[in-house]
Amino acid sequence: MSRPESVTLTALPGIPLIRAGDDLASLILSSLSSAGVELQDQDVIVLGQKIVSKAEGRLRNLADVTPGEAARRLAAETEKDPRLVELVLAESRRVLRRRPGLIIVEHRLGFVCANAGIDHSNVAGEDEGGEAWVLLLPEDPDASARRLRARLTEATGARVSVLIIDSHGRAWRMGTVGVVIGASGFPCLLDLRGNEDLFGYRLRVTEVGLGDELAAAASMLMGQAAEGRPVIHVRGLAYPARDGSLVELIRPAEEDLFR
Amino acid sequence: MSRPESVTLTALPGIPLIRAGDDLASLILSSLSSAGVELQDQDVIVLGQKIVSKAEGRLRNLADVTPGEAARRLAAETEKDPRLVELVLAESRRVLRRRPGLIIVEHRLGFVCANAGIDHSNVAGEDEGGEAWVLLLPEDPDASARRLRARLTEATGARVSVLIIDSHGRAWRMGTVGVVIGASGFPCLLDLRGNEDLFGYRLRVTEVGLGDELAAAASMLMGQAAEGRPVIHVRGLAYPARDGSLVELIRPAEEDLFR
Repeated sequence: MSRPESVTLTALPGIPLIRAGDDLASLILSSLSSAGVELQDQDVIVLGQKIVSKAEGRLRNLADVTPGEAARRLAAETEKDPRLVELVLAESRRVLRRRPGLIIVEHRLGFVCANAGIDHSNVAGEDEGGEAWVLLLPEDPDASARRLRARLTEATGARVSVLIIDSHGRAWRMGTVGVVIGASGFPCLLDLRGNEDLFGYRLRVTEVGLGDELAAAASMLMGQAAEGRPVIHVRGLAYPARDGSLVELIRPAEEDLFR
Repeated sequence: MSRPESVTLTALPGIPLIRAGDDLASLILSSLSSAGVELQDQDVIVLGQKIVSKAEGRLRNLADVTPGEAARRLAAETEKDPRLVELVLAESRRVLRRRPGLIIVEHRLGFVCANAGIDHSNVAGEDEGGEAWVLLLPEDPDASARRLRARLTEATGARVSVLIIDSHGRAWRMGTVGVVIGASGFPCLLDLRGNEDLFGYRLRVTEVGLGDELAAAASMLMGQAAEGRPVIHVRGLAYPARDGSLVELIRPAEEDLFR
């Protein structure tokens, strides 16, 4: 990767509240056009997970969920709504840690996160609003990113890439940071093996989580109450384009000393 | 925090190779001046750890290190140089995980990282060069950031903030990302408790690791062989200025489910 002199991240204006079935690619193209931005090769479009999930109809009403025995037990241990816990378990491969108020899982998509990424906040039910509605992560965020990228490239001719991000807590450190949950066109993990530093040593830190670094950068502009500015346009980052995938960033459980 | 429309990160040009005793503030002010950048309130200057460590004389020659019994045992287990392991232990509170090629510690500064952040690459010895030289982290990176910030503010009148960053591996996810190891003037952990989202729900994700998000963003421009562009200027991020400290980002061991 030739390192850039300067990178600019811009929150796209005028993205409306998203409902199931909305066409995100069209909304992004309209916003770019009204902002006077013409997409260029190597631009990156970063989307917050919530608008992708909503467009894909991933809202669920807890009134429709019947918790099983495992969910009821875990709900009692963690002081959570058993119906929410049922959804958490359905979206997860396994529970790694639990305590009152907190369930940390290995998500079916492979990453480790709290509550399987299921979100209460910033979710309005389509009919009644209210706390009974929760939002699951997209079914397959890599595929969502691929579809969006294909639409953006088709419409503009620019070879852009797309990241879908969420905010995750971390081991060891306080605070959430933006991380990739779906990608297309971007090298999420950059392998520097064999590169030499200024003094000719082979680099020992060989793999950079570039996708997560960009996710964190974009997350700063989204903020947490992100529905109003859920799409960030990135220009100036020179990267080796490839298909890219969330999978690059998942540390296999058997190689993870902290799982 | 009022969320910005646009944030621009720029690698400062012409920062030379750093030696013990160099005045980083002067070098940064010269670089800003030659780039035609006038510092403004709320600008952030992000420095890679290596140049701070070098300026502070933290190079060590392994030939001067005598490993003790604990270091020799751990070196045998991890297939590392016992003299390097002696330095790792001296810089650490405790060893969390070990395996061939890898020692993960709780650093004396509080964070969890590999090899106590001690670096072979990009380090040239002052007299002979060569692999016998290693670079320790700054003695007190928060204090280093405070001193630099005071100098920059004194010289320009702008209320800026300063971050010192390093690249750390992570539990669960592949690849290193930039993280804060020292800060002054910047709210490393942003508490959103009590804020409401667009639908009036109280936010549940209440603490954002804003310092680490900015560290990751700046790290993208530094790259790994970073000596040539180790200082990043950030403009456009509106944040509540306060003293700030690395300490905000350290999860206390007793609250860490993964230590």
